[in-house]
Amino acid sequence: MPGAMLGAIEAGGTKFVLAVGPSPDRILARHTIPTRDPATTLAEAAAWFAAQGGESALGIGSFGPVELDRASPKWGFITTTPKPGWADTDFAGHLARALGGVPVGFDTDVNAAAIAEHAASGRDGGGSLAYLTIGTGIGGGLVLDGRPVHGIAHPEIGHIYPRRHPEDTDFAGICPHHGDCLEGLASGPAIIARWGASLSKLPADHPGHAIIADYIAQACHTLFASVAVEEVVIGGGVAQTPGLVERVAERARALDAGYLPGGERHAVIRPRLGTNSGIVGAMMLARAAAGA
Amino acid sequence: MPGAMLGAIEAGGTKFVLAVGPSPDRILARHTIPTRDPATTLAEAAAWFAAQGGESALGIGSFGPVELDRASPKWGFITTTPKPGWADTDFAGHLARALGGVPVGFDTDVNAAAIAEHAASGRDGGGSLAYLTIGTGIGGGLVLDGRPVHGIAHPEIGHIYPRRHPEDTDFAGICPHHGDCLEGLASGPAIIARWGASLSKLPADHPGHAIIADYIAQACHTLFASVAVEEVVIGGGVAQTPGLVERVAERARALDAGYLPGGERHAVIRPRLGTNSGIVGAMMLARAAAGA
Repeated sequence: MPGAMLGAIEAGGTKFVLAVGPSPDRILARHTIPTRDPATTLAEAAAWFAAQGGESALGIGSFGPVELDRASPKWGFITTTPKPGWADTDFAGHLARALGGVPVGFDTDVNAAAIAEHAASGRDGGGSLAYLTIGTGIGGGLVLDGRPVHGIAHPEIGHIYPRRHPEDTDFAGICPHHGDCLEGLASGPAIIARWGASLSKLPADHPGHAIIADYIAQACHTLFASVAVEEVVIGGGVAQTPGLVERVAERARALDAGYLPGGERHAVIRPRLGTNSGIVGAMMLARAAAGA
Repeated sequence: MPGAMLGAIEAGGTKFVLAVGPSPDRILARHTIPTRDPATTLAEAAAWFAAQGGESALGIGSFGPVELDRASPKWGFITTTPKPGWADTDFAGHLARALGGVPVGFDTDVNAAAIAEHAASGRDGGGSLAYLTIGTGIGGGLVLDGRPVHGIAHPEIGHIYPRRHPEDTDFAGICPHHGDCLEGLASGPAIIARWGASLSKLPADHPGHAIIADYIAQACHTLFASVAVEEVVIGGGVAQTPGLVERVAERARALDAGYLPGGERHAVIRPRLGTNSGIVGAMMLARAAAGA
């Protein structure tokens, strides 16, 4: 019964992952398209969903910034992104209309991933977890006490200022807004700008491994201390560097120094869903929208 | 009708503030007692409440660390505090029994203050706000999307690591766990350890004003970026230094550099309830417990 299928989009700056299936844990078809201008990309996505036979609801986990306030006339929009052509794009509304008026669930890509990882962790109803992605950019999604966090917009943890590592004091950082914020220091492009290669291509004894692990560990400690998450799940391309997540976990433990309440339960881990956290989370947003 | 009165405790490391009244905005009597050993202090509090004529519920905003997990057998306890005698104290249970089995609401002192400031801000049902106290210690409470945050324990934002100010590189910090974490650098005792006087006693042109404002502003930026609060409300003794909150607000704006979504709505402010945020929040915890 095609009408009972859920549709999902994990929308990134370079590609869109599309999926359909009857439930988040049963994706029957998936398709990847490049992120071009909004008109072209959204039309291509809509055409693929139409060819799957019709969906009862759509979930979108999107790059941002996005508008998540249901009371805003701009709900479901990508708002002020520097990505050419995408600022002020009615992402959710456009696709809802293209798919015949289906209900749409909409959140950030990293909140979608956090929702999926939270579900995969088995903490029904409660539990607090952060999902960090370390890749072309750095972003974070949060589920606190069982609920995704929006605040007045959404978390942008890539733009906190970590303390500079003593062996990394010369590099100015590449964030156009903040210079040496977390994203300016530890994203994939920041690593390449500094050392001419991705972290996984640097020799095992290169100081970059400890430096990047330290910056990500500071973000983990900040999350443990400021919102008392139990787990920080680390995804994204940079996080696939062998040994990195283990280094981050060790360094975060050292930063805590045994102080924080509940700290014996803290964990820094790889995604339970591998690279599927975002698209599975978007399926969950679709399921929630279908039930609303 | 005394039985319809609410009782409240704001429990700090040096004093307990006790209050009774029919609602959070109507405190009819209040009393302050020094924080001695648990048996003495809790008995004195219970005696004062009994003398008021009986309460229908009690709210407690407590120093910590505390156990907030309702599923834990240690719910309502002060857990691992270094304060002599207070570790593993059944705070909520002891007073519930002493007051004849009344329902008890229990949270951290700073979450209680955040709940009260959130209510005072008029954001019914939603809204995201942090309450920071800068005093003998540094702590923070959070209301996100209308709900207080617990996580696996509670926020301890005093123990994040701010970037060191370029004019404050020699001082090692006084936190026994972390040295130069936020509390180790910017709490009242850290200020006195460094400059021999409280911030409000230092000359207006002393560099300490900008240094401390910078550290607190980094905490504000971290909260704006990591959980997208709209406001950071700053209370506590150090925050009463003339001009400090304004300096923090200005420095936090500079750290954001116009980037964060919703940033035009960010505010760093003094408590709307003055020094009453904590006790009013404890009254709100009592009201919620009475209705549960």
